[in-house]
Amino acid sequence: MSRYIIPDYDSPIFDGWRAAAGENWSRYIEHEFVLGLGNGNLPREAFIAYLIQDYIFLLHFSRAWAMAIVKAETATQMRTAAATVNALINEEIQLHVQICAREGITESQLLAADEMAENIAYTRFVIDSGLSGDLLDLLAALAPCVFGYHEIGLLLADSKDTTPLYREWIDTYRDAEYRAVCESVALLIEDVAHAKLGDLPQSNPRWERLCQRFETATRLEIDFWQMGLRLGQRD
Amino acid sequence: MSRYIIPDYDSPIFDGWRAAAGENWSRYIEHEFVLGLGNGNLPREAFIAYLIQDYIFLLHFSRAWAMAIVKAETATQMRTAAATVNALINEEIQLHVQICAREGITESQLLAADEMAENIAYTRFVIDSGLSGDLLDLLAALAPCVFGYHEIGLLLADSKDTTPLYREWIDTYRDAEYRAVCESVALLIEDVAHAKLGDLPQSNPRWERLCQRFETATRLEIDFWQMGLRLGQRD
Amino acid sequence: MSRYIIPDYDSPIFDGWRAAAGENWSRYIEHEFVLGLGNGNLPREAFIAYLIQDYIFLLHFSRAWAMAIVKAETATQMRTAAATVNALINEEIQLHVQICAREGITESQLLAADEMAENIAYTRFVIDSGLSGDLLDLLAALAPCVFGYHEIGLLLADSKDTTPLYREWIDTYRDAEYRAVCESVALLIEDVAHAKLGDLPQSNPRWERLCQRFETATRLEIDFWQMGLRLGQRD
Amino acid sequence: MSRYIIPDYDSPIFDGWRAAAGENWSRYIEHEFVLGLGNGNLPREAFIAYLIQDYIFLLHFSRAWAMAIVKAETATQMRTAAATVNALINEEIQLHVQICAREGITESQLLAADEMAENIAYTRFVIDSGLSGDLLDLLAALAPCVFGYHEIGLLLADSKDTTPLYREWIDTYRDAEYRAVCESVALLIEDVAHAKLGDLPQSNPRWERLCQRFETATRLEIDFWQMGLRLGQRD
Repeated sequence: MSRYIIPDYDSPIFDGWRAAAGENWSRYIEHEFVLGLGNGNLPREAFIAYLIQDYIFLLHFSRAWAMAIVKAETATQMRTAAATVNALINEEIQLHVQICAREGITESQLLAADEMAENIAYTRFVIDSGLSGDLLDLLAALAPCVFGYHEIGLLLADSKDTTPLYREWIDTYRDAEYRAVCESVALLIEDVAHAKLGDLPQSNPRWERLCQRFETATRLEIDFWQMGLRLGQRD
Repeated sequence: MSRYIIPDYDSPIFDGWRAAAGENWSRYIEHEFVLGLGNGNLPREAFIAYLIQDYIFLLHFSRAWAMAIVKAETATQMRTAAATVNALINEEIQLHVQICAREGITESQLLAADEMAENIAYTRFVIDSGLSGDLLDLLAALAPCVFGYHEIGLLLADSKDTTPLYREWIDTYRDAEYRAVCESVALLIEDVAHAKLGDLPQSNPRWERLCQRFETATRLEIDFWQMGLRLGQRD
Repeated sequence: MSRYIIPDYDSPIFDGWRAAAGENWSRYIEHEFVLGLGNGNLPREAFIAYLIQDYIFLLHFSRAWAMAIVKAETATQMRTAAATVNALINEEIQLHVQICAREGITESQLLAADEMAENIAYTRFVIDSGLSGDLLDLLAALAPCVFGYHEIGLLLADSKDTTPLYREWIDTYRDAEYRAVCESVALLIEDVAHAKLGDLPQSNPRWERLCQRFETATRLEIDFWQMGLRLGQRD
Repeated sequence: MSRYIIPDYDSPIFDGWRAAAGENWSRYIEHEFVLGLGNGNLPREAFIAYLIQDYIFLLHFSRAWAMAIVKAETATQMRTAAATVNALINEEIQLHVQICAREGITESQLLAADEMAENIAYTRFVIDSGLSGDLLDLLAALAPCVFGYHEIGLLLADSKDTTPLYREWIDTYRDAEYRAVCESVALLIEDVAHAKLGDLPQSNPRWERLCQRFETATRLEIDFWQMGLRLGQRD
């Protein structure tokens, strides 16, 4: 049914969360915005507006991953979280700055942009998952963005009609380097889930709430794409 | 120009924030949803949908005020914040539960309701203002809800065409008890602002950012009313 | 063996934590400082120095209980935590201020006192239990103070040789009002523990770490009494 | 008077905090433990016990620096904080693991070690400075460790009687790489202090409290050295 091979991170926890999100997961991965990246029909204005918001998103998403360091209980958990913060701040954000610069948007314009409500809702929900819960609650809220973007990269990998600009974006999230991030995060999730929930994670009373948290973050991803379309129309 | 006498809490800080929010402040206070409460034209469905979301809002807004206790630096600041938490949890939330019960919505229905993105955006933004900043940053994000609702109560106080249901809501936010909460919060804001910014608060480099934070929370209030209208149409 | 009837809060979780703390629990409850309160041999200087530090302790302990509101996941949990914050800020702290005033120490002297390292260690450990973990981690760190003080009140209840000053202190922690606080906290712990650990809490992999957290807080209580003795000698 | 050239980071803020700490600063830098590292008279047991506690310290100190990422308000602040977290987790902690391994202590022994109260007091105080205050409050609590260790490295740089083991430790904190960390942290402090306090930082009402926070962290450093001596005697 799916147009790409779903990655197997050997993480029953992520698989369970993904399955529990049901239709919302595919509404996120195969959103009109995403399909427009693949067939090249997404208006450039929508993409640029998305990139600007995503720059602000990544700053706050880095803060959320920093909360994972604050909440880590072992040196290994801390190292994975720190490596992810580093990849976000020194690679992914820089990529946004470079693409934007090439498209004529300076970093000071990025910083001066108004943060949209959809953006606020998503990142602050993730950060509060860390403040209100434990590391596992936080990871359930962080997961949809991390894994979803790789699936989107895979979904769009063979797109023939996309533009060079969108191709660069697609390749970023499809490539081996980004996949390695996903794999380390999957390992972290398994590690923390077993430390918190035991050998039968889905039998723990927290399971449903964790699934809900993952699904809420997935819904907020859908809203984020929708925001991209809306901003593209407005400009 | 305004149809009510703007309360004077003797708080230049709040006055400054309110003035800096400009048009957004009146767009919040005199929103279509608010005017509909006054003239009785707001659909009952919209009000009930709002009440349900506002119940969830108040739980998270109480958490945000609890952050103010966590961040208090004097016993007096702590007492004001604790009294506000108490008023929210033991009075305002209970009022919502009672009104909803009378309108046929049980507390378990309230708890089972989906939290809308507009609701998530607002409360988590306020909570994160506490996590990322200091007590003053948090207060700037808490202020629009506290003071705005009293202004709305005053704006609608003499409404002749409202319904008994809306009249009860209006009176809650107009009355002396709620005004006393506003007065104690204004005192707290003055106290903290002078401890953080000095004798010329508006000359401190933080001033602009604090105004922005107040304005962002005000914008999220506007979105919240808009959500009420939208949910009323949908049901 | 024990010289008092151990209270039964019908909380297997607390019973389990208490048992796991082993000797450290009795080293805390039956500390030389405590026994000195009972037989009246504790130097007044030690008690006053303790009261001053305990005033500062209660301010930060209230902040830790406010974190429990921030981390609550149901309205009921929130109400219990808020009631406890209220009891601490509006009753227990006020009692300290009154006793200190009567003994010639003003509230401004209380506020000007240096916070000892033993005091810092204890309260910041509890607060960080909330920041780093979830509500259950926080409760495990909050529990030794809440329940231990009632046991000490019971242990010393029939002391015949104590002084009027120490008698007032003993009665505070022995009486029905304080016991009601313990009972509501025990209910909260059971509620949260079952929501987080399931029906066999001691089989959950978190159990050992929770016991360690409780025991660390117990060790920090012992250090706190030791600090009282030390400060009494110094003055 | 001082036996080393005090580094000049061109940071009036740090200079002001350092000066305000008065005697406590030199009691920290020239502590008996430190002098024992220089003249080689520190018992090996004390050093090993210190290293084990310092391993635990660095894990929590990394969490505190991660809080600085959570609280950063600009991309530049975020990058400096993330680079520091990275240096701590991937360099300084690894160095401890290597030295300990060579001295016959495995990483699992490090992880199994009891965390001493002096260690808890210090790191949790720093972390709570971030939770309760803003980024500047946090930096005031982080600063004594960062800058103090470089001064100690410089103070002991020319020690002739030290052992090879202590020499390696001294060189770590004296060398250019560590100094670069200090320089970037000094820049961060200046940046944040001016954003929070304005052009006359010492005239801002927060100044005194910030100095106190720096001094409290300095006192907790002294306790940490004292702990090292104590543990050396006990083993």
